[in-house]
Amino acid sequence: MKIHFCSQCGSDNIHYRVPDGDHCPRYICHECQFIHYQNPNIIAGCLVTHDDKVLLCKRAIQPKKGMWTLPAGFMENHETIAQAAHRETWEEARARVDLDQLYTIFNLPHINQVYVIYYGELRGDQFAPGPESLQVRLFSTEEIPWDELAFPTIRETLKLYIQDRERGKLGLHCGDIVRPWVLADPKNATLKNLVSH
Amino acid sequence: MKIHFCSQCGSDNIHYRVPDGDHCPRYICHECQFIHYQNPNIIAGCLVTHDDKVLLCKRAIQPKKGMWTLPAGFMENHETIAQAAHRETWEEARARVDLDQLYTIFNLPHINQVYVIYYGELRGDQFAPGPESLQVRLFSTEEIPWDELAFPTIRETLKLYIQDRERGKLGLHCGDIVRPWVLADPKNATLKNLVSH
Repeated sequence: MKIHFCSQCGSDNIHYRVPDGDHCPRYICHECQFIHYQNPNIIAGCLVTHDDKVLLCKRAIQPKKGMWTLPAGFMENHETIAQAAHRETWEEARARVDLDQLYTIFNLPHINQVYVIYYGELRGDQFAPGPESLQVRLFSTEEIPWDELAFPTIRETLKLYIQDRERGKLGLHCGDIVRPWVLADPKNATLKNLVSH
Repeated sequence: MKIHFCSQCGSDNIHYRVPDGDHCPRYICHECQFIHYQNPNIIAGCLVTHDDKVLLCKRAIQPKKGMWTLPAGFMENHETIAQAAHRETWEEARARVDLDQLYTIFNLPHINQVYVIYYGELRGDQFAPGPESLQVRLFSTEEIPWDELAFPTIRETLKLYIQDRERGKLGLHCGDIVRPWVLADPKNATLKNLVSH
């Protein structure tokens, strides 16, 4: 994101250049020398299961309004990834979850995000749409609406889950989701450098 | 970090409050309504080994100048965690590494960081101090300078590595490193909620 004014002194004497001894260009204030660093964000979420079904949320907001997603969102300051996954699951699906393990970690370098998805089981059988969801429901793996999934990270996580269920063991999967889907149909997104633990 | 002026319009009419429909306080510009989000950063690094020894760097800069660390630093926009680990290993230890797997993931919610450390093997046998290091050397596990390690994340990663070597299998370990070490001696830091895959 472009910085037009210094957040510390208010000057508009901002230059986008590589600071001395650094390697990346940054927005630097030439009045007070403050450097406005910008770094990737973590998106934390959860693959919530119940009786072999997966919990999906229909998005009530842009982007991808009307498409299905796992509960997930920006990790906040002062929380852990697990706490963020719990919080997002509550906010979007009004569900409580027992987190079993980290499940997928995807780099999305073209949008400066790292997705971290936990695997967990629904606690009890209660869920309902939060303010950012139109609908929340459990899908058997046969019912997953593949053509209506909001993001490639969600599709890849669900594909890995189905593979893991077939082999009878949940892994922990790390990979990169690369640029094509920004330019075209998300269905063209490419998962690369997959490493499974 | 406190925001005094809007980065988009330059106004000082900034208020720290919870935006409508949100749950966390943010710095909001009351002139142009821009919200200055702040989120955790990822620190990417690498446990580099060679002939059963680990590569440590003596820090040339603050914080913890003169203390030993693994090559690690802030992940940048437009890169993956693995690319960041490679880059930091080159910048701090002038070493190339073959990354084998993700190794430790630590939440540090009190300083809004997530440490992600890869495990890898030194490619060739070359290494040297980069500009942020005073010295780089290989330590056998018996030689590790436990009292001179820069950060609890480094100590916990090395402890887990020694345990894993004894059992003959490298895991992938996730946990939280909690607040006490900010207030007192880093040796008092507490690793909690450890889950090993």
